[in-house]
Amino acid sequence: MSDDDTLRRAVLRANLDTVRHGLVVSTFGNASGIDRATGRILIKPSGVPYDQLTADAMVACDIQGRVLDNRLRPSSDLATHAVLYRAFPGIGAVIHTHSTFATIMAQARRPIPCLGTTHADYFYGTIPVTRDLTPEEIAQDYVLMTGEVIAETFAGIDPLTIPAVLVAGHGPFVWGRTPDEAVHNALILEEVARMSWHCMALSSEPKPISQELLDRHYLRKHGADATYGQAGA
Amino acid sequence: MSDDDTLRRAVLRANLDTVRHGLVVSTFGNASGIDRATGRILIKPSGVPYDQLTADAMVACDIQGRVLDNRLRPSSDLATHAVLYRAFPGIGAVIHTHSTFATIMAQARRPIPCLGTTHADYFYGTIPVTRDLTPEEIAQDYVLMTGEVIAETFAGIDPLTIPAVLVAGHGPFVWGRTPDEAVHNALILEEVARMSWHCMALSSEPKPISQELLDRHYLRKHGADATYGQAGA
Amino acid sequence: MSDDDTLRRAVLRANLDTVRHGLVVSTFGNASGIDRATGRILIKPSGVPYDQLTADAMVACDIQGRVLDNRLRPSSDLATHAVLYRAFPGIGAVIHTHSTFATIMAQARRPIPCLGTTHADYFYGTIPVTRDLTPEEIAQDYVLMTGEVIAETFAGIDPLTIPAVLVAGHGPFVWGRTPDEAVHNALILEEVARMSWHCMALSSEPKPISQELLDRHYLRKHGADATYGQAGA
Amino acid sequence: MSDDDTLRRAVLRANLDTVRHGLVVSTFGNASGIDRATGRILIKPSGVPYDQLTADAMVACDIQGRVLDNRLRPSSDLATHAVLYRAFPGIGAVIHTHSTFATIMAQARRPIPCLGTTHADYFYGTIPVTRDLTPEEIAQDYVLMTGEVIAETFAGIDPLTIPAVLVAGHGPFVWGRTPDEAVHNALILEEVARMSWHCMALSSEPKPISQELLDRHYLRKHGADATYGQAGA
Repeated sequence: MSDDDTLRRAVLRANLDTVRHGLVVSTFGNASGIDRATGRILIKPSGVPYDQLTADAMVACDIQGRVLDNRLRPSSDLATHAVLYRAFPGIGAVIHTHSTFATIMAQARRPIPCLGTTHADYFYGTIPVTRDLTPEEIAQDYVLMTGEVIAETFAGIDPLTIPAVLVAGHGPFVWGRTPDEAVHNALILEEVARMSWHCMALSSEPKPISQELLDRHYLRKHGADATYGQAGA
Repeated sequence: MSDDDTLRRAVLRANLDTVRHGLVVSTFGNASGIDRATGRILIKPSGVPYDQLTADAMVACDIQGRVLDNRLRPSSDLATHAVLYRAFPGIGAVIHTHSTFATIMAQARRPIPCLGTTHADYFYGTIPVTRDLTPEEIAQDYVLMTGEVIAETFAGIDPLTIPAVLVAGHGPFVWGRTPDEAVHNALILEEVARMSWHCMALSSEPKPISQELLDRHYLRKHGADATYGQAGA
Repeated sequence: MSDDDTLRRAVLRANLDTVRHGLVVSTFGNASGIDRATGRILIKPSGVPYDQLTADAMVACDIQGRVLDNRLRPSSDLATHAVLYRAFPGIGAVIHTHSTFATIMAQARRPIPCLGTTHADYFYGTIPVTRDLTPEEIAQDYVLMTGEVIAETFAGIDPLTIPAVLVAGHGPFVWGRTPDEAVHNALILEEVARMSWHCMALSSEPKPISQELLDRHYLRKHGADATYGQAGA
Repeated sequence: MSDDDTLRRAVLRANLDTVRHGLVVSTFGNASGIDRATGRILIKPSGVPYDQLTADAMVACDIQGRVLDNRLRPSSDLATHAVLYRAFPGIGAVIHTHSTFATIMAQARRPIPCLGTTHADYFYGTIPVTRDLTPEEIAQDYVLMTGEVIAETFAGIDPLTIPAVLVAGHGPFVWGRTPDEAVHNALILEEVARMSWHCMALSSEPKPISQELLDRHYLRKHGADATYGQAGA
């Protein structure tokens, strides 16, 4: 199987898995992946019912967000994905969902602090909310500016250590090294958002865990000294 | 297949889909459709178990809410549907559900502000709550007056731009150009109501998105400049 | 089939339906029915896994709560059921569940006001919470006194118009003319409790619907002038 | 079947049941059991997908937490389990889950008071939250110290009467005499946590049930005078 076929299948699977995990309402969601060797992005086509998606239907684009084939229109969020691939060279996949609690936190403009070890296992600190786009940014090139405001939010943050953002008044974008990892991050984000919402409803400023506990958990699963899982696995 | 048969099937499907999507408890719900060419309404019969509904069981009525055949009684909410068809000439289908969060907002008499782009993709602004019916209106002709108070609530609003209402102390009525579209709107309404409730529980007056963002999203999916979906689809 | 067999099957079905509808956690729940002609109660045996329940396993008792056969122990809540059959002559079935929101309201000692028409279709006013049992009542005959405090709570109320109660710090008891009706009431109670909790979380004293609207809905489904459902059905 | 095989199967079943009951997100969870005759612990291997787990894959360790075979790495939480087996001689199984509401309460550092009889049937009083670990404890031997802080929390409490704890900022550990009992306790803990959260959201200091009612329920199911279930069962 060619690299392109492998990535097509991974991107298809990511799109279907977001539905299977209940992270998407209706057709509100899209996943893409990039082949860093060639710079080709593959992304879900726009408005096609999930039960009719095939690997072959994924739309090929370049990293500037220009469509490379003309069979189907790409997701209307393509320009956001393309900005993220340009701004975050370490990522290999991007997913946009409307999962319930992550979207609630995005609508409420509440960053998700690290309240527990579930969060610390995947996100190395607070998951941020973008600022609102200005009327000019919305008028000018809304989808592209959505990507730019995400990149702006991550100034000084390694996006692979906090692989998600809440776009104010909109919903989450999540990424990872591969489409499978991005789906997994989207699933954990939703659970972390759900727990965070419930903690905030009991106490408006819940207490984050200590930096030491965050370090202990995050570094157990990431980096050179990881001790989790089977050796070599 | 005749137009009547096509509409019968679409109305049956809408009734079954509201159950399948969990928008209805027990038999609390009803969907109807209208053939604008003939003015015939087809509506769910009253109190028939969902697993025994057939296309043929849908009850035919005229736009004044008079039953045109005598086999089964129509839904007890028929008069409300008929008012909506008379007041809103652009709509082709009406659904009444008791979906959990939309009903909660109707009971709490809280209009649903546009807090995010999920809402903006489908509803062009706040989803309103009707005023309470007066004791006289309840005594006089309750079901008809429920329709009248909805029509009153939409004075000056194009009902196709905000295809749902919360009837105070009761629950949602939703509409669309077709039965399938009305079901889809009912499903989105429930998700939007769920997210809105959760935002209000964190902050009693959550901040709506800007008019510019509302315009950008609503107009992306509706009207002449829509850019979403496949060309010609 | 004898009357006893018919009732055995109905009581079995009620026990299984409470599980199927998610109203019971583990084996926390029990349903019974009574044959008013003979005064025989049939009730779920104690602690038998639901997937091993048969109609034949239902335990026969008299209305004083004395077991009439010795094969299996009756539900440990038998004495509560028996008090209700003696105190409320119009009822034919009793169900005890631990459904989530009804139990939450019982734990929070919050009566469920009539906030909407879903409630009004089934319960003619506020669903009450019992007072706490005294230490003496708990020591003396706890299960029987649970029934007595329910009966005390309904002094002056027709139990068929409000077919449920929340026992303080414990959970709901629900009844009806038949086991099927009692299951249906338990299902509606849970939905009504869920919606009521959510209204109370937004506003600690949510506004009930008017007496006129309560009358209109309750009397539409109950009594001589009922207009809901198919004639003769 | 040898005792080891029987325990292997019980531990496998406990690991799978926590997933089946929705108590675990992703691979966040682990169950173990101990053979008190030999002091051998069997525990889930680390990071193996649940659908690939077999009885044979359970890792054997001694009560000091030393691995007795080298095929697979044990759960990274092994040292916590081993401390609990040493500190609580009456327990035969330990489960760590990330079930949603128990984890929320652990993150919010809210002990779960006995608000109702569901709680009283299984937990003889408040389910405690541990204190936070100090930076030194986290740096020194985090997993072991997690067990030590649980043991410290239970000073003066019989762990079999309150078979669960919330580790601050982390999540629940639950135990029992057998793996099946521990799973059952984990399931009840989640339901009790869910109800407690909802009571606290309505009223920040909900009222516990009386000591007499707690005694009545707890002692009905536990100890020499238990009256629940079938005789001899």
